[in-house]
Amino acid sequence: MSEIDIRELVENKKLRDKITTAEEAARLIKPDTTLGCSGFTPSGYPKVVPTALAKRAEVEGPIPVSIWTGASTGPEMDGELARTHCTKRRYPYQTNDDLRKGINSGEIQFADIHLSHNAQNLRYGFYGKVDVAIIEALRITEDGGIVPTSSVGNSNAFVELADKVIVEVNTVQPEGLYGIHDIYTPENPPNRKPIPISNVHDRIGLPYLTCDPKKIVAIVPSDVKDSQRPLAPEDEISSKMASNLIDFLSVEVKNGRLPKELLPLQSGVGNIANAVLAGLSEWPTDGLTVYTEVIQDAVFELLESGKISFASSTALTPSPDGAAKYYPHINDFKDRIVLRPQEISNNPEVVRRLGIIAMNTAVEVDIYGHINSTMAGGTRMLNGIGGSGDFARNAYLTAFLCPSTSGGGKISKVVPFCSHIDHTEHDVDIIVTEYGIADLRGLSPRERSEEIIKKCAHPDYQELLRDYKRRAELGKGHEPHLLYEAFSWHERLRVIGTMKK
Amino acid sequence: MSEIDIRELVENKKLRDKITTAEEAARLIKPDTTLGCSGFTPSGYPKVVPTALAKRAEVEGPIPVSIWTGASTGPEMDGELARTHCTKRRYPYQTNDDLRKGINSGEIQFADIHLSHNAQNLRYGFYGKVDVAIIEALRITEDGGIVPTSSVGNSNAFVELADKVIVEVNTVQPEGLYGIHDIYTPENPPNRKPIPISNVHDRIGLPYLTCDPKKIVAIVPSDVKDSQRPLAPEDEISSKMASNLIDFLSVEVKNGRLPKELLPLQSGVGNIANAVLAGLSEWPTDGLTVYTEVIQDAVFELLESGKISFASSTALTPSPDGAAKYYPHINDFKDRIVLRPQEISNNPEVVRRLGIIAMNTAVEVDIYGHINSTMAGGTRMLNGIGGSGDFARNAYLTAFLCPSTSGGGKISKVVPFCSHIDHTEHDVDIIVTEYGIADLRGLSPRERSEEIIKKCAHPDYQELLRDYKRRAELGKGHEPHLLYEAFSWHERLRVIGTMKK
Repeated sequence: MSEIDIRELVENKKLRDKITTAEEAARLIKPDTTLGCSGFTPSGYPKVVPTALAKRAEVEGPIPVSIWTGASTGPEMDGELARTHCTKRRYPYQTNDDLRKGINSGEIQFADIHLSHNAQNLRYGFYGKVDVAIIEALRITEDGGIVPTSSVGNSNAFVELADKVIVEVNTVQPEGLYGIHDIYTPENPPNRKPIPISNVHDRIGLPYLTCDPKKIVAIVPSDVKDSQRPLAPEDEISSKMASNLIDFLSVEVKNGRLPKELLPLQSGVGNIANAVLAGLSEWPTDGLTVYTEVIQDAVFELLESGKISFASSTALTPSPDGAAKYYPHINDFKDRIVLRPQEISNNPEVVRRLGIIAMNTAVEVDIYGHINSTMAGGTRMLNGIGGSGDFARNAYLTAFLCPSTSGGGKISKVVPFCSHIDHTEHDVDIIVTEYGIADLRGLSPRERSEEIIKKCAHPDYQELLRDYKRRAELGKGHEPHLLYEAFSWHERLRVIGTMKK
Repeated sequence: MSEIDIRELVENKKLRDKITTAEEAARLIKPDTTLGCSGFTPSGYPKVVPTALAKRAEVEGPIPVSIWTGASTGPEMDGELARTHCTKRRYPYQTNDDLRKGINSGEIQFADIHLSHNAQNLRYGFYGKVDVAIIEALRITEDGGIVPTSSVGNSNAFVELADKVIVEVNTVQPEGLYGIHDIYTPENPPNRKPIPISNVHDRIGLPYLTCDPKKIVAIVPSDVKDSQRPLAPEDEISSKMASNLIDFLSVEVKNGRLPKELLPLQSGVGNIANAVLAGLSEWPTDGLTVYTEVIQDAVFELLESGKISFASSTALTPSPDGAAKYYPHINDFKDRIVLRPQEISNNPEVVRRLGIIAMNTAVEVDIYGHINSTMAGGTRMLNGIGGSGDFARNAYLTAFLCPSTSGGGKISKVVPFCSHIDHTEHDVDIIVTEYGIADLRGLSPRERSEEIIKKCAHPDYQELLRDYKRRAELGKGHEPHLLYEAFSWHERLRVIGTMKK
């Protein structure tokens, strides 16, 4: 039990009888049930109940469960439950080593689903029943409303759909988060109405998840912090990509294709994404806005400096340093940040209406502009597609970023044919590496390959790519390929350890 | 000149001075300009001006132009201008033999762009300037409003963006079409508002294209009909696919995942698409609806019988027989059909809100559920992606249909790895062949390959596919592949003329 009296945080007095231990709550989870858990990135996910479930599994053997969350979560859930062989199925995204191992061995069935689609498809009944929701909360209101913590994710859908709800009341999450959330659930067709967001700051819902108090079967105190990940120090290559992209945006403004305060920015998770946003500290105009799925350190910083005036997201994902710096006075950000369900933060309807500038990282790109976001060597899952598909298809401008090489230069990130395709040529406007920017808008495939090789490929690989292009074009075709050697680069890497010839 | 006095159809009297011949109008088209032309499928496209331009080119040599339309058009435009080497660039879709030849030889630069994106990206300035719009019209109103004919396509954007507008007033298109169109153009971000469509029948705009009369530089009479294509007689395989899909929809209704009058239907162009809709004549409930990009014969038929209560589209694409049957009393359909700009008919915002059931045909599918919609052997353009990406990503239910084989059984439509990917595994709910339906919702890649091979592949290819799957899975991975033989099926076809071993 934490020092704060957990009973005070359960405003509905009748529900106070449900306060129990993590071990008791974990007993409510039967084998072969489906869990719907809060959490998006290692933020706002349940910690003590999954830990208790894993401990029980260590003694009693695996308790097989299917697990839905918002996106990835932390090690208490994705690590422990995979390690103890409880995770039978896992949707819709992950970043955990143990979980990834289980997925790639075929033990864990994983499906990589656009993040904005999860909740609606669950409501439509496409993925079966959600039995138990486990939600991390700041508090429970008088009428059973559950106040989320550092993320919203799919929690509104899980609470609505589950038979039973377990709440972890977390006493170390910043209290000041109460009021930052905006929970809105669209109706199912044929009764759905327009989502009434026309500006990033529009609030359209309630500050908590509505829940029939009768469904709440256990309330468990938790004092475990989000397992935030440190950001790597910014490296030269990320800075160069960021500055290439920012130069490009400046030209777009100069040519009247973007307003000077740009359009709402979306940026993926991780170091490159953070570097791009950090680079905007030099942008000449204040009042930038963000409509995205995660808020990392750079956004807090630019909100503080006034460069960014408002940020909409579904999760706060600061580094430990960022959390230490910004969480103590999170209250000051509440008029400039809103956290929405991922069905709304990532909704293509809103993405297209607002005219998002979508910036996501690629695992590899090919000479015609197809993007691999998920898989190494066409087969081994890295993390997943996450929300990139929600944003890329309907953004105003869609950028994919990656360094030109990896593996000490042995892997070219520009290849003849992507070994896995998550985003097609039809969805990509620009590709950014540390060498430059390929602007693919309106180009035919042959023109695209010229542009990508010239502007984005590492000099060590340019001639090899040109050679492929030249020989492929001898055979004619709209998008010339030599299918029998399209994956030869990946094969060289597999067999001799480098894509170089 | 036609027998109707063309002057009567130009209500704005000042504009009557602009009435001229196709030859004179074609003289206004300078080399190296960009044309924005009406037309979507062989419906509502300009005919006499392109013909005159091609004739001039035959004498004077090619007049190189870039051509934007709604989608494909007819032979007077796509055929003649490609044949006379006038077409330098062509967007965003085509179905013409001569044009295809030019695209695949590399002479014509073609880019395959989601149909709902064309107009907005042109307005954003991403593809350069539209110099001259050529629009087929029923009439011109007092204030310069241009009334489209059998399609809307991107005409509203072309008229808005072009410096000069040439109007072909077509006197053989059914007059009764006046009033069927609903023209609405969204504002550009950051000022865009929700598209106010919550039902297929909602009308939100004007029945004509608004145009500053000063921009109209020529008005040309035309009495050339749309070059409609006959529908092939329904074959056994199409009927089987249609009945498989309809059985599936019945089960969805029984399980409460669809209402008994279904949700609005979208169906691609062609024989298979028409067969699926025709199959719904046996559906037990009246009041079905359609939200799609083309209305073919089957929809007219079901509107007439009352099975379908309303259809929204951007084009009417009847066969010659269908046109002969339905066009003379098209007036009777005007309260049950609306034609919208393709930016609206195909808009993902509306597609997702209404909960469309999207049914499109595939060129090939792979064992993990990726879809090739455009390219033969990974290189040779067939038609293009058209609107399938607009619908597939955000539909309620996304189906792709194809026969299990083609080429007399020598080509399996289910392959280890699609030779070109237009729709990723993340966007596909079900795959339909004449053998059955693979329901991929919520399945992991390994489960998907099992389901697709079992339910959809031709028996002649099942063991070969299983063999690939088995050997690939030995190497582990989330989506097991043997990259060095992933395209070996396409290679066998190329070298020995069959995918069979």
